[in-house]
Amino acid sequence: MRATILYGPRDIRIDDVADPQILRPTDALVKVVASCICGSDLWPYRGIRETPEPRRIGHEFVGLVEEVGSEVRTISPGDFVVAPFMISDGTCPSCRHGVQTSCDHSSGWGGPDAGGDLADGGQGEWVRVPLADGTLVATPEVPDAGLVPGLLALTDVMCTGHHAAVVGGVGPGQAVVVVGDGAVGLSAVLAAARLGAERIVAMSRHEDRQQLARTFGATDIVAERGPDGVAAVTDLLGGPADVVLECVGTEESMAQALGSVRPGGRVGYVGAPYGAELPIRLLFANNITVAGGVAPARAYLPELMAEVLDGSLDPAPVFDLELPLAEVAEGYAAMDERRSIKPLLRP
Amino acid sequence: MRATILYGPRDIRIDDVADPQILRPTDALVKVVASCICGSDLWPYRGIRETPEPRRIGHEFVGLVEEVGSEVRTISPGDFVVAPFMISDGTCPSCRHGVQTSCDHSSGWGGPDAGGDLADGGQGEWVRVPLADGTLVATPEVPDAGLVPGLLALTDVMCTGHHAAVVGGVGPGQAVVVVGDGAVGLSAVLAAARLGAERIVAMSRHEDRQQLARTFGATDIVAERGPDGVAAVTDLLGGPADVVLECVGTEESMAQALGSVRPGGRVGYVGAPYGAELPIRLLFANNITVAGGVAPARAYLPELMAEVLDGSLDPAPVFDLELPLAEVAEGYAAMDERRSIKPLLRP
Repeated sequence: MRATILYGPRDIRIDDVADPQILRPTDALVKVVASCICGSDLWPYRGIRETPEPRRIGHEFVGLVEEVGSEVRTISPGDFVVAPFMISDGTCPSCRHGVQTSCDHSSGWGGPDAGGDLADGGQGEWVRVPLADGTLVATPEVPDAGLVPGLLALTDVMCTGHHAAVVGGVGPGQAVVVVGDGAVGLSAVLAAARLGAERIVAMSRHEDRQQLARTFGATDIVAERGPDGVAAVTDLLGGPADVVLECVGTEESMAQALGSVRPGGRVGYVGAPYGAELPIRLLFANNITVAGGVAPARAYLPELMAEVLDGSLDPAPVFDLELPLAEVAEGYAAMDERRSIKPLLRP
Repeated sequence: MRATILYGPRDIRIDDVADPQILRPTDALVKVVASCICGSDLWPYRGIRETPEPRRIGHEFVGLVEEVGSEVRTISPGDFVVAPFMISDGTCPSCRHGVQTSCDHSSGWGGPDAGGDLADGGQGEWVRVPLADGTLVATPEVPDAGLVPGLLALTDVMCTGHHAAVVGGVGPGQAVVVVGDGAVGLSAVLAAARLGAERIVAMSRHEDRQQLARTFGATDIVAERGPDGVAAVTDLLGGPADVVLECVGTEESMAQALGSVRPGGRVGYVGAPYGAELPIRLLFANNITVAGGVAPARAYLPELMAEVLDGSLDPAPVFDLELPLAEVAEGYAAMDERRSIKPLLRP
């Protein structure tokens, strides 16, 4: 089959690789219908994270089940499935607590699974899915093609933005600030609106992203950053926010978040920490709760999938570029250069 | 009047000081019925925090109102009042959010108030209370003498332990670990029991404190610390705890807390940070929520006071030593040397 291989910084190609097969009785074999490129894929693409040897990549995909192992119970050939960005067994204590990202048998895509065999990357034609019952969620029936982008968004960004809003305790009547205007930040805006926030301030300097933030429910836009950004938020809301959703992970973005939240407020953070720190004395003095982490997308999939299928939730607009898988390199370049918020790939 | 003065490390005395008077129309003048010594009073007493010049001390007291300023509405002469450990106006945004410790006009006791005048320390005969309406809570009638210790515990330690449990999200069916066996940690045990925790593991190496922890509702005691303590907790509970209440504030105690909580769990921390850090990558990877800070005792006083008055909540046993105010130095020495959990002082 054809699959994406990252060779090194900004060197990404489609190659022929071995066709995956069922290796264990808990596996499923999935033909990818659509996949996409994540902000975190840009880290190795940009060389921020090293790529010592060529590797498979992509952790967001939806597809059709071709075959399942003998022990798979909840997934059948012909099912349309959504794959969260981490593999989980669905049975360990963390999975039962809804924290599938801390599963005893968790692993990612495009590298070794918990048993040491390759779990194919999502940016390819086929994927062997380990622990299929624990990992995949099937739609009740094969959805209309028009729903595929919205379902694909649930594999990561929509569930991640939702996680920020849930652990941040967003609820009716609240004033919420969203730091980060990438696909996750924009999804967090949508999630905050869905949870009933009264004011949603999206911090963004890019007009196209500001526009999408408004479409997703942002009531206000702040283009300033740093102290000016904090001042602008405080002016708009008449004080700092009840909740801030931090969707970047840098030192600057966390400072922006902590500067924008009121005493007794909450920061929900889902930006993978890259320079961000939690200054305990500031948090302690102001009773600021910080909650977040790697989003357990698997926990949220059933609820959010139902809303995408009935049309009440539509995160599909995060995809502003669609390319054939063969042009994956252009997808990475477009995202890297911020010409695209999030590219969708069709094998 | 007579009041406690801290002169320097382990040099604490009762001296004659000026009788306080009403200075502003929002003041009240309170005759102290009982006060006590806090773990945080030991910091300057031990010289960990410097005492550049002699200072008044004590931030926990209950008493009888002698006189009120012309603008005081909710407190009257003759009232028995409980004073939380911080002064607040009761009207600013933080007060309205129940975070009175971040009040726009907050200050402590024994130093300058928001207007720059001395707010007397609690370890004396009389106290001028600034912002009396915002700060004090009166009992419906003057309580029986036997209830005074329980009410006094609400000024700080019981509300602080309760804060840890509330922000830690303690609820029915949960397994909770309490790190710290001082008066706050013991109060946190009582608070966790009150909120319905199913298992409460108190970490303590001192038999008298272990005993009190059991009286307050601890189901299990762990005397080990560090990795052995984590292993003992995990053994007892069949895994890490849902919630850990961190009531110390040191590097070791926070490490103990973070090591004892399950992925997706919560740490409620009320130990003033003294070396404690929040390792964001660990928290992020495991989706651990950290919440806490300076307890807004004022917010909790009405609810907990009602329970102390009706006998359903009794934190009084945290006081294991009662002394006349004249022997305050012995009270400090007893607490410093861990001969007493918490000494109560009667003027």
